[in-house]
Amino acid sequence: MIKVAVLGARGRMGQNVCAAVEAAPDLELVAAVDAGDDFSTVARSGAQVAVDFTVPSVTEDNVHKLIDAGIHAVVGTTGWTDESRARVAEHLERDGRGLGVLIAPNFGLSAVLAMTFAKKAARYFESVEVIELHHPDKVDAPSGTARHTAHAIAQARAEAGVAASPDATTEGHEARGMDVEGVKVHAVRLRGLVAHEEVLLGNVGEQLTIRQDSFDRVSFMPGVLLGVREVVSRPGLSVGLENLMDLG
Amino acid sequence: MIKVAVLGARGRMGQNVCAAVEAAPDLELVAAVDAGDDFSTVARSGAQVAVDFTVPSVTEDNVHKLIDAGIHAVVGTTGWTDESRARVAEHLERDGRGLGVLIAPNFGLSAVLAMTFAKKAARYFESVEVIELHHPDKVDAPSGTARHTAHAIAQARAEAGVAASPDATTEGHEARGMDVEGVKVHAVRLRGLVAHEEVLLGNVGEQLTIRQDSFDRVSFMPGVLLGVREVVSRPGLSVGLENLMDLG
Amino acid sequence: MIKVAVLGARGRMGQNVCAAVEAAPDLELVAAVDAGDDFSTVARSGAQVAVDFTVPSVTEDNVHKLIDAGIHAVVGTTGWTDESRARVAEHLERDGRGLGVLIAPNFGLSAVLAMTFAKKAARYFESVEVIELHHPDKVDAPSGTARHTAHAIAQARAEAGVAASPDATTEGHEARGMDVEGVKVHAVRLRGLVAHEEVLLGNVGEQLTIRQDSFDRVSFMPGVLLGVREVVSRPGLSVGLENLMDLG
Amino acid sequence: MIKVAVLGARGRMGQNVCAAVEAAPDLELVAAVDAGDDFSTVARSGAQVAVDFTVPSVTEDNVHKLIDAGIHAVVGTTGWTDESRARVAEHLERDGRGLGVLIAPNFGLSAVLAMTFAKKAARYFESVEVIELHHPDKVDAPSGTARHTAHAIAQARAEAGVAASPDATTEGHEARGMDVEGVKVHAVRLRGLVAHEEVLLGNVGEQLTIRQDSFDRVSFMPGVLLGVREVVSRPGLSVGLENLMDLG
Repeated sequence: MIKVAVLGARGRMGQNVCAAVEAAPDLELVAAVDAGDDFSTVARSGAQVAVDFTVPSVTEDNVHKLIDAGIHAVVGTTGWTDESRARVAEHLERDGRGLGVLIAPNFGLSAVLAMTFAKKAARYFESVEVIELHHPDKVDAPSGTARHTAHAIAQARAEAGVAASPDATTEGHEARGMDVEGVKVHAVRLRGLVAHEEVLLGNVGEQLTIRQDSFDRVSFMPGVLLGVREVVSRPGLSVGLENLMDLG
Repeated sequence: MIKVAVLGARGRMGQNVCAAVEAAPDLELVAAVDAGDDFSTVARSGAQVAVDFTVPSVTEDNVHKLIDAGIHAVVGTTGWTDESRARVAEHLERDGRGLGVLIAPNFGLSAVLAMTFAKKAARYFESVEVIELHHPDKVDAPSGTARHTAHAIAQARAEAGVAASPDATTEGHEARGMDVEGVKVHAVRLRGLVAHEEVLLGNVGEQLTIRQDSFDRVSFMPGVLLGVREVVSRPGLSVGLENLMDLG
Repeated sequence: MIKVAVLGARGRMGQNVCAAVEAAPDLELVAAVDAGDDFSTVARSGAQVAVDFTVPSVTEDNVHKLIDAGIHAVVGTTGWTDESRARVAEHLERDGRGLGVLIAPNFGLSAVLAMTFAKKAARYFESVEVIELHHPDKVDAPSGTARHTAHAIAQARAEAGVAASPDATTEGHEARGMDVEGVKVHAVRLRGLVAHEEVLLGNVGEQLTIRQDSFDRVSFMPGVLLGVREVVSRPGLSVGLENLMDLG
Repeated sequence: MIKVAVLGARGRMGQNVCAAVEAAPDLELVAAVDAGDDFSTVARSGAQVAVDFTVPSVTEDNVHKLIDAGIHAVVGTTGWTDESRARVAEHLERDGRGLGVLIAPNFGLSAVLAMTFAKKAARYFESVEVIELHHPDKVDAPSGTARHTAHAIAQARAEAGVAASPDATTEGHEARGMDVEGVKVHAVRLRGLVAHEEVLLGNVGEQLTIRQDSFDRVSFMPGVLLGVREVVSRPGLSVGLENLMDLG
């Protein structure tokens, strides 16, 4: 039974996390706090792991307090920089008790796996393009996840010395989307959709397609719980849920 | 048994048509001519239908000769204009013998049906976008077929008074593809592919997807044969294979 | 402004219909009744169209009362038979005022269109198979919609004299699904899904795929409203929403 | 420049391998032999790697001769058993010169990656099913590749202690396909297709889909060449191309 505290417990994600922890037979919710609550509640709760879905302005401070209190952390809050992550890594090392902190930009298992597999497959194909599909109220295009995926693909191909995807076209580049370091990202906006991503990889005579669909925010809960269960045995800072998964 | 002549018989498409006619139990190949051959061969062959896969510079002249010879025509050659089509329609009416001419820009049944269905469905959905996918040696983007599909969709929606697809994005419009009269067309180029088109239609809570894949040029033959069999009972000029199909 | 009454207004579908009617600028909700309420409320409401989402045991009686009251009807309740439909058709003819009744087994536009298009395309392809995908709590397999689609496909092919889809396999027929009059229906059950159907049609060198996804019950509302708007100008009995759509 | 010999050089696969080796700038074809040719030709050719696409009855003997001659081997011939593979592994160890032998049932990169990714992802999802799609002249169903994939998925889930995919259906299990150790495999047969496989993985609110398409036999060549380039630095026996790929 792992004892879990939730920070940001009254937000949308926080509420879902509390419910998911309570529903899991191997986890126990021992503290649920939000802005205005005293941090000592968490420290005194006996929590072994804390889940932070708060706001960018307080999340780093929370993590340092959690380390001081000897509590592992799973962080879904955005706004982290190379500098703030480095300070956490340093703190963990200085602390020396083998605590683990996971900072993850995405807890959707299908999204995390799609990105991981796309990155690994990228060097073995002549062509690769990305299509992301979202509801039409989304303001940015392409999505951050798709840009992140395309960047990871571009980097993997560069490291393996793979040439750019062939492309004979010279005009007609005005559709929604973007060229991310040589990887084309197409952005579809369609009523009825939520958040979806498709990576297409092609060689002569063959194609590999990796697609992920997120139909609902609850889809993040299995990933959060996986983080809670695994972070206790991963000392130091891990960035990205894929690093706590068994994908070797 | 329908007697068939092939014009442009030594070209790639013409050769395929000759083979397909010879393999069909209800059709008989009675003439196969190409540049340099005398047209009288066709006239004297007893052909009831002629298939024309020649070149833009001679196809209209061929069709007028075929009408004069009392032969129905199935035309796959490109380069037709509103004016040249009008002259054929007029000639057919003047002729008065009930001859039929089919001019079709595409004989792929899956392509023709995808476009026809997309056009019919377009007015019933809040959002619609088109993705076309081709091999990376294709120079133009988006493909002519996809532009044509998007144009037909835009027109159908305008006629039904349907608003433009919703879109909250304001930047990131630099991917391969184009906005065709308000319908986004995304163009994917991937080694391994041939010619593919996908139309995505969305309402709150539901999606309709119509996709067609052309893996090979031989895929045009069923459409050409369908044209040959149907044109004999469709007097006048028909533009587009869908008009000879039973889709009512 | 069309005046609309809803029968079965307190059921799940009825509540959604009331909300959708109220949200539509060209429709006015004038009566919302359910079991126990007096039918005279509907008759006196001035309703031009009534939507019936009640139960099989009362729906036919409701429709006859609506016809007597001079109100068009859109019926989503199940349980209709050839006999009960014939009685309604007869009543409408006898009534002679040009009233329309629509009885529809499915109001999902994407589902209705997928089935309609599949039926039309079926005769033009050598092979056709159906895949339906649902959440794993669904007890029956394959789904009624998929069986209905397969039956319509089989019938269309039989009418056009098309041979059965080729199949060289002789063993390994133990997967979830069924052979419906020669059309293979595969049934996938997967957590995360709602209700989806895919029709695959193939010829040498080409494929046509028609797919529909229902993510949510609200997806039926555009179809119900379309029925309400169209039924007033379609005298007599119509079975199936596709008959009120402009798909010719 | 790696010197390559091809055994079974007059077969369909062998001819493709010879052409692919000759077209690769970093490989040199130094011997191409087939049944009836003297093995000493290979031994004397200076080949560093030999590719064997012969027949089950001679492939093991070929590999032992290659080891004796100090030549690495890439084997695509089928018919290997646990015993014959064990004899090769033993011979390699006894030989002690660090030679490598790759025996691969599949050289399609998309197929190999799809299977590898499906296996890794399987334990993270509540549901998983497999759809394989082939041309209708294929006699067996489901395909060997799909059975292999399903077996690998079942094994990975068993090792991770994951429960069987939920399934409320109790009847309607007569479609083409099979239950492989609790993993449903659906087999589609459609004119126009070649060889395709789709793995569907689902959790509440999300789906991951991994699909691979083989359009043509030439799609195996990149995998064969990858084997040739990598086997020289992988001493001992490797079974499966994925073990020579950088997927960690």
